[in-house]
Amino acid sequence: MTGQHILISEVGPRDGLQSIKSIMPLAAKKAWIEAEAAAGVTEIEVGSFVPAKLLPQLANTAEVVRHARTIPGLTVAVLVPNLKGAEAAVAAGAHKITIPLSASETHSLKNVRRTHAEMLDEVRGIVALLRGLPVAERPKFEGGLSTAFGCTIEGVVPADKVVALAAALMHAGCDEVGLSDTTGYANPAQVKDLVRRVRAAVGEHALSGLHLHNTRGLGLANVLAGLEVGISTFDSSLAGLGGCPFAPGASGNIVTEDLVFMLEAMGLQTGIKLEKLLAVRRILRDALRGEELYGFTPDAGLPLGFIQESA
Amino acid sequence: MTGQHILISEVGPRDGLQSIKSIMPLAAKKAWIEAEAAAGVTEIEVGSFVPAKLLPQLANTAEVVRHARTIPGLTVAVLVPNLKGAEAAVAAGAHKITIPLSASETHSLKNVRRTHAEMLDEVRGIVALLRGLPVAERPKFEGGLSTAFGCTIEGVVPADKVVALAAALMHAGCDEVGLSDTTGYANPAQVKDLVRRVRAAVGEHALSGLHLHNTRGLGLANVLAGLEVGISTFDSSLAGLGGCPFAPGASGNIVTEDLVFMLEAMGLQTGIKLEKLLAVRRILRDALRGEELYGFTPDAGLPLGFIQESA
Repeated sequence: MTGQHILISEVGPRDGLQSIKSIMPLAAKKAWIEAEAAAGVTEIEVGSFVPAKLLPQLANTAEVVRHARTIPGLTVAVLVPNLKGAEAAVAAGAHKITIPLSASETHSLKNVRRTHAEMLDEVRGIVALLRGLPVAERPKFEGGLSTAFGCTIEGVVPADKVVALAAALMHAGCDEVGLSDTTGYANPAQVKDLVRRVRAAVGEHALSGLHLHNTRGLGLANVLAGLEVGISTFDSSLAGLGGCPFAPGASGNIVTEDLVFMLEAMGLQTGIKLEKLLAVRRILRDALRGEELYGFTPDAGLPLGFIQESA
Repeated sequence: MTGQHILISEVGPRDGLQSIKSIMPLAAKKAWIEAEAAAGVTEIEVGSFVPAKLLPQLANTAEVVRHARTIPGLTVAVLVPNLKGAEAAVAAGAHKITIPLSASETHSLKNVRRTHAEMLDEVRGIVALLRGLPVAERPKFEGGLSTAFGCTIEGVVPADKVVALAAALMHAGCDEVGLSDTTGYANPAQVKDLVRRVRAAVGEHALSGLHLHNTRGLGLANVLAGLEVGISTFDSSLAGLGGCPFAPGASGNIVTEDLVFMLEAMGLQTGIKLEKLLAVRRILRDALRGEELYGFTPDAGLPLGFIQESA
């Protein structure tokens, strides 16, 4: 694996901010995104196009997208719950759009008030919208299978259901699918098994990314399992901000700082400079007073004699 | 791997208690050890035979050993820094004795004021002592290579040095060697590499155990790496108590609760009942007021629908 490039997709400005009460000022969001890009992060999910009354923390997503697009080399990703959100994302100029489809239908109804069939209708609507755009302006479109490893409401989510939904998303016209451990239920054996099964159904290149949580402390072990079956994109959140507000007790994104430390220590290439990344926490500390920031590596510091080969 | 038995060696009563200021009353130590054994833990490092003035927390180790020996099926392990400690361990009736040998000589001098050569002399002295005992009464003798993955004083510890010291320990008469990430510097690639190298030098069965820390959040990922190269014994500490008091910033044993959750969720067999194990934390909370208890699974709870196959 040594030397392989791994893409870290920072989701803090979306998944992190949607899960906390504080509302981060627009200027701080811009500073955060700029600072992470300057540290070498090349993909950031900067917000979500949801009604402002549901998530006031993300009300200025269009403005954030427009600003983020001015940063050279940065892939600007957003989450959209439906066609209307996708229209707003396209208007703002997002490079990548992800629609979450919860493998647990109960969770889907609670989260976006839609059944699987209704969500797949939205997906087809978005595909039609995107195919109407000139190729050069067409954002990449991912179907993100949330609660793929288990649900806090339904409990066990059968792997067959996840595989079938992944196939349905690709059939509906998504460019790729991702698997999300929204609830922090995943274990390394399950990660390997589910990745293999989904890839067998949709093809190796249709599944590149995992969104893992650290709810039960297994986040980085699950990343390692993903790496070992060829996953090359991982979502994470600076300072571990976030989780799903509609999956009770499911807080805890994996911490970008710890993830980058692990990958770089293993000799993989993230392109991210750790010292610079660690310094970005100051922006969160200043803009989100009272919110808890997580991470082991930030507390412990880098090992004595640790040299980052890619930096 | 599914179905394989993994041995969890609980080190909290030694590594945990030596690293905190509070002194746990003898009755609480006994209750802790009894409760973990009742939850299915079959090996516990119950203390260390060091001068009481250095570690008053462990002054009653002989009494703890004698009590722990009355628990059916429990392997009673202790740490000893030298021959004198080993004599006390034998007198008390320990089943397993581990002597730490720091791969970093600077750390060795700071921790036990002895060079590598002096430590190997102690090892030979202990081997002579043990060989003088009737076979049935002879405790198992392990050489534990601390700072094997890096040192907070020396920085990088060359793998060759660790391999040479492992061979020296076996040559001096140890029954087996273990590798300790005393400083929380290890990463999964390094764990696999070092385990393979040490085994190539001393034989597969001479290295069975890893003692890993979670200082930078990689503890369970490192366990997974160990599992994948055939390691079947892992040290951990209930509530993540502990670390090495002489390696600054190196706190953070891996949390027994999270480790058992990961292994059981993966379908491996620890023989430990999670619900019972989680309940043992109450003993620590009551006896160590003011000390921080760690662990993600205890906070998040077990996943809905989680069934422990081995319990």
